[in-house]
Amino acid sequence: MKKIGIFGTGSVGKTIGAKLIQLGYEVKMGSRTSNNEKAADWVKANGPKASAGTFEDAAQFGDIIFNCTKGEITLEVFKMVGSNHLKGKTVIDISNPLDFSNGMPPFLTPQYTNTNSLGEEIQKLVPEANIVKSLNIVNCEVMVSATKSGGDPTMFMSGNNADAKAEVNELLKQFGWKDIIDLGDITTARGTEMMLPIWLRIYMATGNGYIGFKIVR
Amino acid sequence: MKKIGIFGTGSVGKTIGAKLIQLGYEVKMGSRTSNNEKAADWVKANGPKASAGTFEDAAQFGDIIFNCTKGEITLEVFKMVGSNHLKGKTVIDISNPLDFSNGMPPFLTPQYTNTNSLGEEIQKLVPEANIVKSLNIVNCEVMVSATKSGGDPTMFMSGNNADAKAEVNELLKQFGWKDIIDLGDITTARGTEMMLPIWLRIYMATGNGYIGFKIVR
Repeated sequence: MKKIGIFGTGSVGKTIGAKLIQLGYEVKMGSRTSNNEKAADWVKANGPKASAGTFEDAAQFGDIIFNCTKGEITLEVFKMVGSNHLKGKTVIDISNPLDFSNGMPPFLTPQYTNTNSLGEEIQKLVPEANIVKSLNIVNCEVMVSATKSGGDPTMFMSGNNADAKAEVNELLKQFGWKDIIDLGDITTARGTEMMLPIWLRIYMATGNGYIGFKIVR
Repeated sequence: MKKIGIFGTGSVGKTIGAKLIQLGYEVKMGSRTSNNEKAADWVKANGPKASAGTFEDAAQFGDIIFNCTKGEITLEVFKMVGSNHLKGKTVIDISNPLDFSNGMPPFLTPQYTNTNSLGEEIQKLVPEANIVKSLNIVNCEVMVSATKSGGDPTMFMSGNNADAKAEVNELLKQFGWKDIIDLGDITTARGTEMMLPIWLRIYMATGNGYIGFKIVR
């Protein structure tokens, strides 16, 4: 069974990690320091298949990497980690270029949206890794359990490497996603990252964050 | 029965206009000149309740206005028409700030997206009109017949005036929309205008333009 490295110890990283442990994977959670308290608590709560270390430790450990860092630090993290331990690996990128500096709702950082995306920028930083953008359009509990939205929503994938997308497709199925659309190469991440503004407005209008997008067709 | 003015003689304007005629409304289609050929053909095809004129004629005629102009000329059209004939009227804005200058897929014009929207800019140009952004997230055949998507998709409304949104809600129902979410004021149009990039990527990946977005919840 493949080993998983996770970048980020926020609620996305912890929720994805716990689900992967439940599914039987060994998971190492990575952060800036190897003695991160949130990571240590998560390891304690998740048993012998859970471990923690630096971002680099998680990159080295994982056959597959989940990037669950906040968009504002994502590129810094990939610069720190470098390509060394990511060569040929599938990196599932869940980050979004959200800027909360003006409060709610956040806007998207202009240089990483519309004619660019965070997914593309990561791919440029680690050209030998296979970045697959996915899961970034729902909250983390829906990410790992699609039916928590109350239905059968659609999930998207964007990436340059077909084998990596096949691997992500399998993981998405294990998270309960049945309707998966491969949008094409990593530039199509522009489309899904730009869904955050509507997600946020629906959440603010309805108070419901357990939503999904079903493409009716 | 209320009279409808339509700005724009492209496929969106013609399709919406034809549907409104079928529903029993009188419709005047407006364009730059009163002798526009496309408008004349549309009038011929749609019988005695159909007429055509300038943008200003359509604004004066309509109790309700549909803005079906291309995003690149929308603000010019509203500057041309002015507030005079739009005071207190509901204006359903279907435009999107798409820039096709670099080919497919278009990007969104940076000054009208993310921290702004075309809906908001129109509202600023005609402050005494009640702009309601809606219908801009699907193709024009789905706009007037929601089930053409093959299901029961969700439609959004954004606008500052509750009465105007109630009026739009009634029209949307006549177009077959059953699941309608009021997102809030006109600034929430940022959310729906930013759905165009994902619509375009789904269309390019699947070849299917008869899609809708269902918010699963």
